[in-house]
Amino acid sequence: MGSDSDLPVVEKAIKKLESFGVPCEAHIMSAHRTPERASGFARNAVKNGFGVIIAAAGKAAHLAGVLAAHTTLPVIGIPVKSSTMDGLDSLLSTVQMPSGIPVATVAIDGAENAAILAAQILAIGDDALAGKLSKMKEEMAEQVINKDNQLQEKFNTRN
Amino acid sequence: MGSDSDLPVVEKAIKKLESFGVPCEAHIMSAHRTPERASGFARNAVKNGFGVIIAAAGKAAHLAGVLAAHTTLPVIGIPVKSSTMDGLDSLLSTVQMPSGIPVATVAIDGAENAAILAAQILAIGDDALAGKLSKMKEEMAEQVINKDNQLQEKFNTRN
Amino acid sequence: MGSDSDLPVVEKAIKKLESFGVPCEAHIMSAHRTPERASGFARNAVKNGFGVIIAAAGKAAHLAGVLAAHTTLPVIGIPVKSSTMDGLDSLLSTVQMPSGIPVATVAIDGAENAAILAAQILAIGDDALAGKLSKMKEEMAEQVINKDNQLQEKFNTRN
Amino acid sequence: MGSDSDLPVVEKAIKKLESFGVPCEAHIMSAHRTPERASGFARNAVKNGFGVIIAAAGKAAHLAGVLAAHTTLPVIGIPVKSSTMDGLDSLLSTVQMPSGIPVATVAIDGAENAAILAAQILAIGDDALAGKLSKMKEEMAEQVINKDNQLQEKFNTRN
Amino acid sequence: MGSDSDLPVVEKAIKKLESFGVPCEAHIMSAHRTPERASGFARNAVKNGFGVIIAAAGKAAHLAGVLAAHTTLPVIGIPVKSSTMDGLDSLLSTVQMPSGIPVATVAIDGAENAAILAAQILAIGDDALAGKLSKMKEEMAEQVINKDNQLQEKFNTRN
Amino acid sequence: MGSDSDLPVVEKAIKKLESFGVPCEAHIMSAHRTPERASGFARNAVKNGFGVIIAAAGKAAHLAGVLAAHTTLPVIGIPVKSSTMDGLDSLLSTVQMPSGIPVATVAIDGAENAAILAAQILAIGDDALAGKLSKMKEEMAEQVINKDNQLQEKFNTRN
Amino acid sequence: MGSDSDLPVVEKAIKKLESFGVPCEAHIMSAHRTPERASGFARNAVKNGFGVIIAAAGKAAHLAGVLAAHTTLPVIGIPVKSSTMDGLDSLLSTVQMPSGIPVATVAIDGAENAAILAAQILAIGDDALAGKLSKMKEEMAEQVINKDNQLQEKFNTRN
Amino acid sequence: MGSDSDLPVVEKAIKKLESFGVPCEAHIMSAHRTPERASGFARNAVKNGFGVIIAAAGKAAHLAGVLAAHTTLPVIGIPVKSSTMDGLDSLLSTVQMPSGIPVATVAIDGAENAAILAAQILAIGDDALAGKLSKMKEEMAEQVINKDNQLQEKFNTRN
Repeated sequence: MGSDSDLPVVEKAIKKLESFGVPCEAHIMSAHRTPERASGFARNAVKNGFGVIIAAAGKAAHLAGVLAAHTTLPVIGIPVKSSTMDGLDSLLSTVQMPSGIPVATVAIDGAENAAILAAQILAIGDDALAGKLSKMKEEMAEQVINKDNQLQEKFNTRN
Repeated sequence: MGSDSDLPVVEKAIKKLESFGVPCEAHIMSAHRTPERASGFARNAVKNGFGVIIAAAGKAAHLAGVLAAHTTLPVIGIPVKSSTMDGLDSLLSTVQMPSGIPVATVAIDGAENAAILAAQILAIGDDALAGKLSKMKEEMAEQVINKDNQLQEKFNTRN
Repeated sequence: MGSDSDLPVVEKAIKKLESFGVPCEAHIMSAHRTPERASGFARNAVKNGFGVIIAAAGKAAHLAGVLAAHTTLPVIGIPVKSSTMDGLDSLLSTVQMPSGIPVATVAIDGAENAAILAAQILAIGDDALAGKLSKMKEEMAEQVINKDNQLQEKFNTRN
Repeated sequence: MGSDSDLPVVEKAIKKLESFGVPCEAHIMSAHRTPERASGFARNAVKNGFGVIIAAAGKAAHLAGVLAAHTTLPVIGIPVKSSTMDGLDSLLSTVQMPSGIPVATVAIDGAENAAILAAQILAIGDDALAGKLSKMKEEMAEQVINKDNQLQEKFNTRN
Repeated sequence: MGSDSDLPVVEKAIKKLESFGVPCEAHIMSAHRTPERASGFARNAVKNGFGVIIAAAGKAAHLAGVLAAHTTLPVIGIPVKSSTMDGLDSLLSTVQMPSGIPVATVAIDGAENAAILAAQILAIGDDALAGKLSKMKEEMAEQVINKDNQLQEKFNTRN
Repeated sequence: MGSDSDLPVVEKAIKKLESFGVPCEAHIMSAHRTPERASGFARNAVKNGFGVIIAAAGKAAHLAGVLAAHTTLPVIGIPVKSSTMDGLDSLLSTVQMPSGIPVATVAIDGAENAAILAAQILAIGDDALAGKLSKMKEEMAEQVINKDNQLQEKFNTRN
Repeated sequence: MGSDSDLPVVEKAIKKLESFGVPCEAHIMSAHRTPERASGFARNAVKNGFGVIIAAAGKAAHLAGVLAAHTTLPVIGIPVKSSTMDGLDSLLSTVQMPSGIPVATVAIDGAENAAILAAQILAIGDDALAGKLSKMKEEMAEQVINKDNQLQEKFNTRN
Repeated sequence: MGSDSDLPVVEKAIKKLESFGVPCEAHIMSAHRTPERASGFARNAVKNGFGVIIAAAGKAAHLAGVLAAHTTLPVIGIPVKSSTMDGLDSLLSTVQMPSGIPVATVAIDGAENAAILAAQILAIGDDALAGKLSKMKEEMAEQVINKDNQLQEKFNTRN
């Protein structure tokens, strides 16, 4: 993440990755305040055994793009909503990357989805992880169905 | 892609994947006109040996999200610019996915980047492909440097 | 509705329909978490005696479009305002449907209007319901006129 | 429609309605230039045997709302893209109606969908029309499938 | 105003007009709920001795345009910020009027300026009112200058 | 106008004023390039017999606001669409004036409406001009009705 | 600043300049309420020994542009977020200046950056100030690194 | 500039700097394709005798921010309009910089103003350059006045 103010958003990604048993490291690295550390991290990410990088930043959110410039690993970008512009600045700064350097962008403040996307990417070569993702999908469906059933007692005026 | 009108955009992704030697299939499948085929394709994608799905659609672009609903594979979304709203509708419809179902969104009309992102994802377990991505990065850098050198003869008024 | 978080908005539609004596069912069905149930519901809606479907969803709001893909009934979409983008993402995802699959979109969080629109549609072949709608229009006018009259005692400085 | 400049957009709706065999009248009526005719038309629409009103207008598009104010028939609004603001002004002026007076809004310049939505509404009590809509859905699907099949000869590099 | 919910905004206009000694009437009239009263009011405004009409409305704000359709008096529009879209919908619905029917639009929630603009219009043929406007301008300037002077004691680090 | 590039837009206002027989002067005065001339013009406008000032400018359109700062005459602002941002920058720069200094803003590129609004303002004390405005309204209505009548021969499939 | 309501934002710029030991004056001067004082200040700024002008204003933010019109000093603009439009109006009114009169615009409410930019400009001919800026950059980096280190104890699940 | 496609925009800045006699170097350096060259250039800019850096880039425009991260020189950002989003993405990516790293942003495609701003900055310690800027301001004013005079023969109907 680009700043410790992004931690409340990023924490949801960390928790989700932990729930899948995917080991991860969380760092504060700024594209603008610690550019060398950020680019160094990305340059060595393959060598250091990382499979995916998730970058969260707000406003003119350059972090994901700067990391993507220094690695061939997939980089997932989380645009963080800041105090003005309702996250539109973060979204456009993250997603509108020029040809050659993609950033896999998720929704504004979409940290949980960033973690799920990372798990989906890592699951291509990992059947156990793929199984956990299938199970999560089933549980999500069950939760929706349960809530739907509860609703029927309350609002159904047709039968 | 959701419609054959998206083909001029999507063709750049196909060409890029071919340049990496990544085998792919191109389909026209609409979340709204052929929903069963779209969901069936996504449901069977793992079984049929796909590693990544790229979905391109415009306006209220539901295709990527609908495919993502039916698979645990990573789904990359290309928001296609249509005749109104300058692509903003496609972008928001693709990227603002609810928690649980991520879509890895690239820039509006960013088909080339979708292909590179797919290759980056597949390259995690494929050193040869990773090598091709590194080479592409180097060639891009060289091209920029060459163009910069040519510019020096023309505009440098300092030395 | 796509999620139980949409219930505070949707409840206004249910209450309005009840006030017209229009029987209805409320369901939580997600285009992304329970796609089969959503499409199954829409596919069987005519057979099950529904006349109109109202779909409420936020962010990349695909629910109305996905339901519309599976039925020839009119589908009314309520774009729900979520925590970012002030409802613009929901509105564009709902209204900007491609040719062939319309969604009758009402205002952001416009649940009451969705119910009235549904009643207007059903009233085409139902004079009693049409009468209730006329009466509602008259009552709305009366309320405005009453409030206007009260205002005259307070602010009129011309006479 | 609010102006004859909207005719190229509206003509697609007329043609679509003709293809369904739905009789219709096309009028130029302005909420601002001929307000009495517009409100008179809406006030008498039920009596004159209309089932649905479609209103197309651009910029500060008040026509649909003004018609809806004078009738209990469902009013469908087509926001027409004008020379500035890319249709956003028309869309918001049409869809963001206050509680009590809904306008069933379709996509910017979405005339064809307005006609289909009108047909869907009228088809609730008209099985022949419902059948035509089902057939249209099937034909749309077939067209997509045919185009998909043609694409396979050209781009499939997997098999 | 279109609804009594606009009163907190409109009240500032009334107070400002009172401060100039300009007599006024405040009405709640809805372009959608009481269209006849609104158009009747505008049609008779010249005859009833009004010089300027101020209309305040939110969301798809048609009131100013509908009044302007029925009078040759200048109509001032106040776009009122509602619960979504931050007032952009109200602004575009008010200001983007088609050729032939202008609305003199002020800032979102700019009721005070609507009153000043009305006074400026009426002051063309009224020297006493023009004098009050000049005096208001001088007082505004003095207030700014006083605040600036107070600031100098606190922040000036140059002298 | 702020620049001679605005002339194609402004010319429509001049022609409209001429059609009403309202004498006018057209000037190029820039809030940024000739600020003294602009403020001097506004400061002396009452003395020089002007009744209304119309200001047209694009991008960060300060001209209307700067003129309004120096006069108590009503100032009408025309936001001119420039090469980027589709006129949104001009609109917001013109309409969002702070309390105390209103600008009567018309639609983007709405020069004709600016002229009509100016005439409406001047017509408060000028019955002949008011009569011309009424006549223009009638002619506009007639034109719409004529076009509507022509349309009936072509598209009416109901009778 | 254009109004004393901008003081909470501007105060951060003043404090930052003080931390660099850069002497400054803070003024409330309105482009609209005290235009003569504003233009007079800018016209005499070079003579009075100023090196850079920082202007903060909201809504239709003309202050920076009006000051820039009267001086050849660099003018830095801070768009201040107001109660509507989330600062977009202020940003576009400040940054979209016509050719010939630049305003060096920083982020919405970006007062601290305005002060740093002013210091960077003044530091071109001032090695001591340049040294302070380098030191600030180092301290910012250190803070990020310290926070990153603290995070490692909490979230690192890889080693 | 970030890409040679930005040259048509940037060329206007180069020509303007040449007209002031300000020596400059033009480079193509990409924040994403040649990040090391970009950061190296910025890191050595002071040592190499640069006074100001101008960065032009489109879409997710990170170049100005990345350069600013590596230098204490003032960095001017030109947001370049690309094929989608009308320059809004470039503008927000350039201007919305986080606290600590300002970018002096000019208008979308505002290359000429970037050059003038650079000259204004360098002119603080350079009276000859300041004189040229004053002369440019006078010439701009004369041009406007000449055009205004020509207009008087054509459109003045008051005298």
